[in-house]
This record gives sequence, structure tokens and C-alpha cells, in this order.
Amino acid sequence: MNTCQTLNSLFSPKSIAILGASNATGKSGAVPIALLLDAGYTGKIYPVNPRQDRVYGLPCHASLNDISDTIDLVIIAVPAVHVLAALEQSRPGQIRNAVTFTSGFAEVGDAGSQLQQQLHAFARERRIRLLGPNCLGFINVRDHTYATFSPAPLNGRLPAGDVGMVTQSGAFGAYAYCLARERNLGLSFWISTGNESDIDVADCIQWLTEDPHTRVIMAYIEGCKDGDKLKRALSAANSAGKPVVVTKIGRTASGAQAAASHTAALAGDDAVYDALFKQYGAIRAYTIDEFFNVGQALSKWPHHAASQNLAIISISGGVGALMADEADDHHLSLPAPPDDVQARLLARIPFASANNPVDVTGQALTDLSILLDTSRDLLATGKYGALAIFLAAAGSSEALWPHLQELVSVLHAEYPNTPITISALLPPERITALQEKGSMVFADPSTAIRTLSRIMHHRPGKRAALSCGKEAVAQKTNVNLPGGTGALNEADSLTILKNAGIAVTPFSVATTKAAAQDIARQFSCPVAMKIVSADILHKSDIGGVKLGISGDDAVADAYLEILSSVQRAQPLADVEGILIAPMHSGGIECIMGVYCDPVFGPVVMFGLGGIFVEVLKDVSFRLAPFDQAEALSMIHETQAVSLLKGERGQGAADIAALADTLAALSQLAYALGDRIESIDINPIIALPQGQGVRALDGVIIRKSAS
Amino acid sequence: MNTCQTLNSLFSPKSIAILGASNATGKSGAVPIALLLDAGYTGKIYPVNPRQDRVYGLPCHASLNDISDTIDLVIIAVPAVHVLAALEQSRPGQIRNAVTFTSGFAEVGDAGSQLQQQLHAFARERRIRLLGPNCLGFINVRDHTYATFSPAPLNGRLPAGDVGMVTQSGAFGAYAYCLARERNLGLSFWISTGNESDIDVADCIQWLTEDPHTRVIMAYIEGCKDGDKLKRALSAANSAGKPVVVTKIGRTASGAQAAASHTAALAGDDAVYDALFKQYGAIRAYTIDEFFNVGQALSKWPHHAASQNLAIISISGGVGALMADEADDHHLSLPAPPDDVQARLLARIPFASANNPVDVTGQALTDLSILLDTSRDLLATGKYGALAIFLAAAGSSEALWPHLQELVSVLHAEYPNTPITISALLPPERITALQEKGSMVFADPSTAIRTLSRIMHHRPGKRAALSCGKEAVAQKTNVNLPGGTGALNEADSLTILKNAGIAVTPFSVATTKAAAQDIARQFSCPVAMKIVSADILHKSDIGGVKLGISGDDAVADAYLEILSSVQRAQPLADVEGILIAPMHSGGIECIMGVYCDPVFGPVVMFGLGGIFVEVLKDVSFRLAPFDQAEALSMIHETQAVSLLKGERGQGAADIAALADTLAALSQLAYALGDRIESIDINPIIALPQGQGVRALDGVIIRKSAS
Repeated sequence: MNTCQTLNSLFSPKSIAILGASNATGKSGAVPIALLLDAGYTGKIYPVNPRQDRVYGLPCHASLNDISDTIDLVIIAVPAVHVLAALEQSRPGQIRNAVTFTSGFAEVGDAGSQLQQQLHAFARERRIRLLGPNCLGFINVRDHTYATFSPAPLNGRLPAGDVGMVTQSGAFGAYAYCLARERNLGLSFWISTGNESDIDVADCIQWLTEDPHTRVIMAYIEGCKDGDKLKRALSAANSAGKPVVVTKIGRTASGAQAAASHTAALAGDDAVYDALFKQYGAIRAYTIDEFFNVGQALSKWPHHAASQNLAIISISGGVGALMADEADDHHLSLPAPPDDVQARLLARIPFASANNPVDVTGQALTDLSILLDTSRDLLATGKYGALAIFLAAAGSSEALWPHLQELVSVLHAEYPNTPITISALLPPERITALQEKGSMVFADPSTAIRTLSRIMHHRPGKRAALSCGKEAVAQKTNVNLPGGTGALNEADSLTILKNAGIAVTPFSVATTKAAAQDIARQFSCPVAMKIVSADILHKSDIGGVKLGISGDDAVADAYLEILSSVQRAQPLADVEGILIAPMHSGGIECIMGVYCDPVFGPVVMFGLGGIFVEVLKDVSFRLAPFDQAEALSMIHETQAVSLLKGERGQGAADIAALADTLAALSQLAYALGDRIESIDINPIIALPQGQGVRALDGVIIRKSAS
Repeated sequence: MNTCQTLNSLFSPKSIAILGASNATGKSGAVPIALLLDAGYTGKIYPVNPRQDRVYGLPCHASLNDISDTIDLVIIAVPAVHVLAALEQSRPGQIRNAVTFTSGFAEVGDAGSQLQQQLHAFARERRIRLLGPNCLGFINVRDHTYATFSPAPLNGRLPAGDVGMVTQSGAFGAYAYCLARERNLGLSFWISTGNESDIDVADCIQWLTEDPHTRVIMAYIEGCKDGDKLKRALSAANSAGKPVVVTKIGRTASGAQAAASHTAALAGDDAVYDALFKQYGAIRAYTIDEFFNVGQALSKWPHHAASQNLAIISISGGVGALMADEADDHHLSLPAPPDDVQARLLARIPFASANNPVDVTGQALTDLSILLDTSRDLLATGKYGALAIFLAAAGSSEALWPHLQELVSVLHAEYPNTPITISALLPPERITALQEKGSMVFADPSTAIRTLSRIMHHRPGKRAALSCGKEAVAQKTNVNLPGGTGALNEADSLTILKNAGIAVTPFSVATTKAAAQDIARQFSCPVAMKIVSADILHKSDIGGVKLGISGDDAVADAYLEILSSVQRAQPLADVEGILIAPMHSGGIECIMGVYCDPVFGPVVMFGLGGIFVEVLKDVSFRLAPFDQAEALSMIHETQAVSLLKGERGQGAADIAALADTLAALSQLAYALGDRIESIDINPIIALPQGQGVRALDGVIIRKSAS
């Protein structure tokens, strides 16, 4: 079913009943009625409470069944143990949606989980969509629908705007409402999802994507139980050109522990979330400040930046340098202005620095038009994706103020899609004025640069462009995985990899000494000989591997030695023969792997062999499947890429072939889906440019019976 | 001369003359007089201007000579070209100090540099100390001495306090004054040094160290011309237990370029500044926000934290996790509270998370004493070095407010040295109230954690403990460096390293085939043979090296082949023989190096060989000389240290011997001082624990004639 149609009656209800309606100011059954009345909600409001006649002047009903109307939304503010009974008093088909404020469900352990399951089952049977339980509810700002018991709006409403906000945590949600109000950030919706028995953050992202009044989505995620749904939602937002900024807690070991003890949701492996957000074009914010800075910046400039070149104008050369440091840290370039632009500035301020950062010096306070003229000169070059201005204490100069307003208005009119930040000490009302005219104000210039870098590096997720329907991919790779569980032997593993289009080393399996000699002779070079047994994962440890063998006699000896070593070490292992492959030398050892994340499915890893993986953990991840371009970005994320690029004089490796192989592996992993636990290709050799790659060893482990 | 005595008359003047005194509001000759009068400066004020009778009601003098008194401080606010003439009208001995506001000196090129030199020479002759030129002057907040033309104090004075601030940049200085005022951060002194013709940031740090009213020093540095002076100043502050927080611009390539174009000062190599600040115990801040956050935190808690354990209390589990993420990023630990503490909390709030982060849930707003009780319980364990509390929007709850004030007051009274931060949305007057009661308030909880981490990791610099007088060290290593310039040959280089206490491989130099055979026979193992010539730095490239040679014939062949290869490739090279050393195998290849920084002298580098240095640039630096403890911290800074520690199963290397060697190298480098350009020991082998190290190759390059 289409989320949009279904959730429309929830998020834009024409009628609202409140279970547990109360006249007691501040109670969860009172706050929403007070807010709805005060805000001028135009739909019908039905207080429900058998112990009240009137609530906030409205006639009160004893039960839902006493209301003759159908009801778009029931707000539930009665204790957890009474929720189900109260709902059961409604008529089948009478209620379309419910939001449950009450806590005491899954978040408090087994008894609560049972209550939540009963509620969920009842709602599902009656086709009622559920928000919560244990949530703060939601606000449809434009329609004045305050289905929340958060007292935050009582201290001041925030303006309607185009940012849709969804947060799993209620405490954070209330804080976020206040922060948005303090920043004068207009919201379309504010939604808290709580225990997510039915509707989760992904549903809300999907809904906000389809909402015509929402241009930017801010999502605060604690855990995710349905990875595919989140992928679809992020992909939809991406395709619709609605940027998503997301904060996901539980990034580090300490954080994840805290997250796990806090919610019933799975905190998940953080590298997987990083990959997810990267691939689906969501911007990850690491602090609450950054979450808001980026969200607010996107609401002004939702389009992708034309370039990663930044222009800086400062009245202090030193602080200009500090801003340049920050730009460098965040991979923004500071190309110098063209000669004529520099000359024009120097003609007016001889001791300015006309380079980028442009240091207009304190003179800018004497010749007040210099800031606007220089800004226009810089932006007219078409060279810069954004402009950051630092005015120090001069921001509070009365003489400068009208010029500052003009500067922002004119630049915004001429370059509405170019982010412009002002860093200065300004009183709150002036900050608001400049922000309304089209710029953003940051007291700390480094924060301005950091925020700009986040939106300037933002690109649509590759996955938005991929046809990512499961069917298309699965057809392409019709994988024949032998039945059973546990590891496949090396020969079977390599064959599956080869059939998936991965260049594996030539090999044959011998089951007699004579066959081993024949095979080795055909390779006409020293060979590697390895035991073939699904029961033996660490072949070398038990003498199951011999390398660099040449000559009939040596092959025969090796054959026998391997068999007897293995027989001694693991007499019960099911041995299927000896794999023989030519020895390889040269190239760069890499590692590719796949593991199956319980929430997001197969995840592909890439790294260079040896210390890069073992000591430095220099690896990158992506969710399967992905294309060569994504694989390239994955390879370039590792520190070791300079080794592959041949920057140390040893000649470049075939990075394109590595990327093709990673993409092929990701397709294979996706087609295999949850039939496997992991795939390891270790090592896979990156040969010199143009010569491809060669997988020398591989093992596929099927899912164990659960 | 003692900086303190000399600068006392500058920074606490009893009499001030103003050259260029003016009645025109806002002019640089008017602002200081207006500020001094308004602030109630108690010394004498002498306006000087031949075209005025009275200035701000005070009698005006035609020239300095017209003033019969001696003058502690002359403020110079006349155009650059008139400065010297105006000063020359004073009587010898009449003036003790001058601060020059005027720009148009070294910062504007050659003509200005000449003016500055003339001014400097005159002042030196008359024994006048100079602040500036091209500076904003200074403020002695306690004594109401406003020797500045910055209009910032006109819009509101900041309170007297114990933070001394010195900034090289005037624009930044004015901004910093306003920021301090906005944060209600009390200053003892505010000083801007400008072109630093005489007094520089280091002098001011030294002065602030000796000032009894200053407890914390905030320094903003653009460049440094006298490294030794800065070292001495930082060392003095360190010894006096006065923490220094420093922002140094020009951290990255872009920043350094901007810095160079802005000041006449040398931006310096940033790795050297990092080493300097680390060794001398200064805290480096990377943004203006951090500069102030750390400065303000230090002014509350100047003592070093008792532990790097942090306690977190949050009313939102999710944000608690976010804070835990940040703590993890900054290497703070979050140990769980003892069982009894957990039990007490859970008895009151069954669904709390009593782990660390402690999630008191929204219940904390119902049971209002829970925050204080839990905080006291946590701190009473003695386990935690700091406490961070997150209250979300609840901070603005009227019911909570008295409890919040009590919380901060009680905790501050009981644990005055334990940093406590509150993160909440609060109006400015409440932020001020809580900060005055002893905590710090950060709207963004991640910023709270980051700031805490900076002060909790702060340790006194090692150099404060070292006897770092040049003489002591130089005596210890009386180094016999052969005269001349350029490279020493390998044999001479290794000999110097060996005499300095570094374990070099045994070697001998043969000048005949027979001698070569003798030497090789004595080593009774395969040998390495290398050409000895100061003219040949890259020996392998021209066939000057043969490895793994054994047997008389092979040695003889190798001897002749090396000589003829070298003769062909570099016929003019001065060949001094063939160095013969036993072959080594095993151990881990490391690299040690020294280069001579023009400002800070010899800098020592450490890294692991191969890709660690070449691909990953995984190296660390320290200023010479340093001890074994500092060398250990240097080794542990590299990513590759886990390889040395044997964490990958290959057995630990002799890290202690590596550290001894680095310390010895640093002593040698310090003793050699600017007689050398560089030293390279590459490779030096770290043998297994207890077996020491072995330097296999080394080259010392003497300073070229300049």
C-alpha cells in the first residue's frame, strides 16, 4: 500500500479523539487539547473520558463508541494497561489511526512487550495505523495539528516551513522542537516515533518525501529493524531531490552500548550505517549542532553545490587563515580570484590580500561598499560554489549594518543557489534579519566552513540512479549455491566466484597422484597445492598447503605429504582432493569480503592485504549491490589507495578491474542474499594496470540453520 | 633583564602620554583618552598635540619635551612617517615604554620595514620598550588602563578576571574582547602585539606568567620569529602551573599561505608547533569556539584532571549515547558506577539505565531531587574526573530551575576541582547564573564533552621538568663534528652516532681488496658492502651496494665491481673505501631523522619503514632535546605502534631501546644545533624485546655555507 495515502489521514486528520482527555493543565490528556484549541485546529475534537462531562469546554464522551462519527486519529493518553480495552470500545472501521503517548510498553521489558504485541495485533486486525507507543506524538505545523503532549509548543510555536523532522527519541524530539524555534527554523512536520510498533522513521521519511510542503528531511535514528524499508525511503527522498540529514546514535562502542540499553531497537554495526547513508545520499551529522546547522543550510540551499571551491572574505587575515585551515581539513579548495578581480580590490585597498582568503583588512569599515563589490566580483567569476565572510566585531558596527543587509539581499537575489555565510557578533534580531534575507550566520567561522563543506560535498546517492529492484539484480546472477549449511570447499567457492564474473586463478582438483602430476605439468610452472575440504578453513595451519612445487617427483611428494598431514591433524575431515593452481608473483595483495548484516543484508568490504587490514583496519564498506563507480569510491576511501595508484613509483595497479570485481562480488552477494553468512576472497591480487586481478583463494560460508 | 620588572611600567603605567591626542570621537588619538577617563584610570594622562589646547578637558602639550615629568607609557597615534620625529622630541630617559597603534610599517613592504627599523633602533638606544607597531594596544583590566583604540570596550566593558589574553592580530583581538564580554569571561590583561618589532607574544606569555592576578593564559599566534623565547615562556607558564591555551593559524597548506601573505612573520612548519605545544604543555585549540571553551573551562578548573573517566547523566538515553560517542572519539572512559549506586537509582526509577551514561529518563522531572542525588552518588565514588549532564528542553522548566541552581552550587562546593557541564536550553541570564555558581553550560552536549576532553587530557609539559638549559646538554655530548659543509660519509656519520650512544651495526672500512676479505672473514657471516663517499648519497642507485656476500672470492669480486660501477657512474666522486658490515635479518625496520627548523632548532622524527612512512606518512615529531618518556609518547603516537607492540602475534619489539635511541639522537641533535642540516638513520632495526636496536645506515649533513 502507498504510505502517502495511508498516512495522510494520520498526519492531516479531519477528526481527533483524545482517550484520557483531561482538564488538568500539563497532563498528557490535556496538553494536546489545549494546543489544538489554541492553535486554531479546524477539524473536530472529541475528548473521551468517562469521568468528565466537558474538557476545555468541549463535550466529553464516555467511550469511543459514544462518538457517532468515524475518527481519523485517536490520541491515546491512558495508562498502558487500559489502552487496549479503551480501543476495543470503538466500532470496527471507526478508527483509522492512533498515536499512543503512554509508556510502559516494549521499553520496560517482557510484560510491556506483551502489551505492545497485543496492541499491535488489534490495530493490524482493525487496519489501524499506529504511531508509538511511548512517543511524544507529532505536529503538522501548517495545519495546526498538535497531536503531542510535549509542553514545548506552549512556550512558543515555531514557524511553518519546509523542513520535515522525525526523531525516534521523545526527549530529543522535544529538545529539537525548542532548538528549531530558537533558530527560527520553519518545520512542515515534527514527528516522534517512540517504540515504532508500526510506523517507524523510514515510514516518516517516505511520507515527508511525498509531502509537497517538505523540501528537506531531518531524521534522528537510534536503531532500525527494517533495513529494506529504510533503503527505500532514503532512495525515494533522493530521487525526489529532497536532501536528508541524519543523526544515528551508537557510532562507537560506548555509544552503541548506551543505545542498546536505551531502546528495544538494534543499534546495528556503525560501518553499515555509514555505507547506507553514503550510498543513499543522506548527510550524516555527528552532533546536535551539526544536525541543525546542516538541516538549516539545506533548507536554504537544497540543491547540490556547483563546485567544491570556496571563496573566503575576512577583515582579519589571521582568521581568514584559520578558515582556510578548516576548509583544507574538509577538502574544500580555495582557488585564487582572477587577476582582474584582484587588481580591482588592490586598487581600492593597497594593503589587502587579494588572494583567497581575501583579506579586505579593517579598511572595509571605512569604504563600506567594498564588501559587496568584492563579493559580487568573486561570485561573478562562476568559480566558487559558496562564499564565507568573516567580519569579527565589526558586525555590530552601526555604520556597517545597512550595508550588511544590502550585501545579503543583493547576493541572495543574484545567486539564490549559492550558500553565503556571515560570521560576526550580532544580536539575535540581526541574525534573524540576515537569515531571512538569505544567508546563514555563524558566530564561529570554523563552524560556518564545516557546515558549508557538508552541503558542498553532498551528492545524490548513487543508489538513486541504480535500478535497485531485487528482481533485476537476481535475474542477472542466477546463482547455483549447493544446498546445506556451513562452508563450501575452496574449489566450489572459486567456481561460484568465477561464474559470477570474478577472475579467479586457473585451477584443477586432483584426486590421484597421477592426476596431480598431469595438472601441474599443464600449468608448466611452479604450482600451489592445497587440500580441498569444506571441513578445513585454516588449511596452512595443518600442513594442507604447499607452495612453489615444480617437477613430477616434487608434485607427487607434496600430494602425499599434504594428505598425510591432514589425515594426522584432522582425521575426520571430508577430503575431496588437492587443488592445484599456478604460482603467482607480483601485483598487490588485496582482500574482498562479504558479510550478511541482519538488518541491511549483504555488506561488501575492501582492503589491502597484510598490515593495512590487520594493523590499520584500513577497509571500506558498501551495501550490496553497487556498480563500478561506487566500487571506485570505495577503493579511493582507503588510505592504501596511493599504493594502488602507483604514487610510490612502483607502477599503478589495475584499479578499474578491482572495482569491476567488487561490483560483481556485490551482485553475487545480493543474489545470494541471506542464503550466505560470508564470502572471503583473500588474497585477490591487483595486477599492473590493464592486466586485471586474480583471486587466489576464496571461501563461501552458507547460512547455518537457525 | 627580567621581563617582569621591565614590562611592569608598560602594563601598569603610572603616567600615559598620547601622541596625536584628539577630541574627535572614534579617532585612534581620542578613544584611549575617552576610555581611560571613563574607566577611572588613576595615573596621569598627558595629551600631546601641537594643534590642540585641551583634549577631553585635559591640558594638551605641544610635544613630549613640554612635559616635565617622566612618562611610563607613550601611546602613539600619529601617522607612521611622523612617529620617529615625535618621539625624538622627548628627553633621553624620559620615556620608558611606547605602544604604537599606527599601521604602515613592516606589514606594508620595504618602505614600512625601514620605518620600523628606524623606530626600533631609536627605542633600543633610548632603552624604550615597544609594543606594536600596527597593534590595537592593550588593556590592564584591573587597573583600568585602556591603552587601546579598539572601540570594543565602548560598547561595554568586560569584567576583571584571571585569564590573560594575548593576540598577535588586532582584528582577532577586538573580536576576542567582544566574545569574552559576551561569555562573561573575566580577563586580567588583553594585549595585542601587532608587528612585534620588540615585544612579542612570548614576552607577553612570560609577563602573564609572572602576573599574580593571571591564572590562565590564552594566546593567539600567527607566527614566531624567536623559538627559544617562546619555549622559555611556555616552560615558565608550565612551571608556574598556569595553563596556556593557544590557537596557531596556518595549520594546513591553505592556511599557511594565507598567514604568510598576511604578516611579516614566519608561519613555520605546523608539525613543529604541534610538537612544541605538546612538549611544553600548551593546549592547542583549532577553532575560535574551542579557544574560548577551553580558556573558560581552564579558568574554572585550572588543575589537571584526576582521571580521564567521565560520568554522563542524561534525561534522554539517545543523547546520552551521542555523548558517549563523542567521549569515545576523544579517548575518555565511561566506567559503570558501582553496584550500590546503580541499585539506589533503580530503586527510585525502575526504568532508568543506571550504567554510564546514566539515563534518568523524564522521571527526573517528576522526582526533582534525583539529579542531585545521582550526581553526588557518582562523584562520591572518586572514580570520575568530570561530570556532564544533559537536560534537553527540561532546562527551561520552572519547577526544575531552583533544583538546577542547587545542584550546581552543592556540587561545586563539594567538588570544586571537578569540571561539571550542563547541556540544556537556557536563557542567557540563567546560563550566567549557573556559570557563576561553578559549572559551564553548553547548548550542544557534544561540545561539552569535547571541551571536557581537552582539559581532562591536559598534562604538564614534560619540558617543564627537564633541565633544559643549553649548557647542561651540550656538555653531556661534546660532539666532534668534522669541519666543512655538506654530507659526511656513512662511516663518519655512523661513528658520530655511535659515540652519541646509538647502537650502530659493527662495520669496518676497507681500502684494499685484501682488507675487505679480512674484515668479511672476521664477521664470519654474509656481509653488506657499501661504497664510502661523502659525494654519493644514493649509493644503491649507482651500484655502490652489494648485499649478502660471503666467501673470499665473492668479497673480492664485489669489492672490484662496486669500485668500477661507481667509477663509471660518478668518476669525480671522492671514494674513501668500502664499508663492510654483517648482514642483519629479522626485526622491524624503523626510520629516525632530524632536521633543523629555522625558528625552533633541531626537530626529531620517528616512523616505521616502508609504507608507513612512504604511503601513510605515519610519523611523529618532537623538538630536541627530550628524554625517554617523551620518546615513548612519540612512538605511541604512530599508528604503527601496534606492530612494535607485537599485537599481531609476531612478538614485541624493543620499544624501550627505540625510545632510548630517540632520546640519545635528540641530545646529539641539540648539541650539534645549527651546525647540521639533517641526520637520517634509515633503517634502524628494532630487534625483539630485550635485544635492542641496530642502526644499519646513517648520514649526517652539515649546514651549507650561507
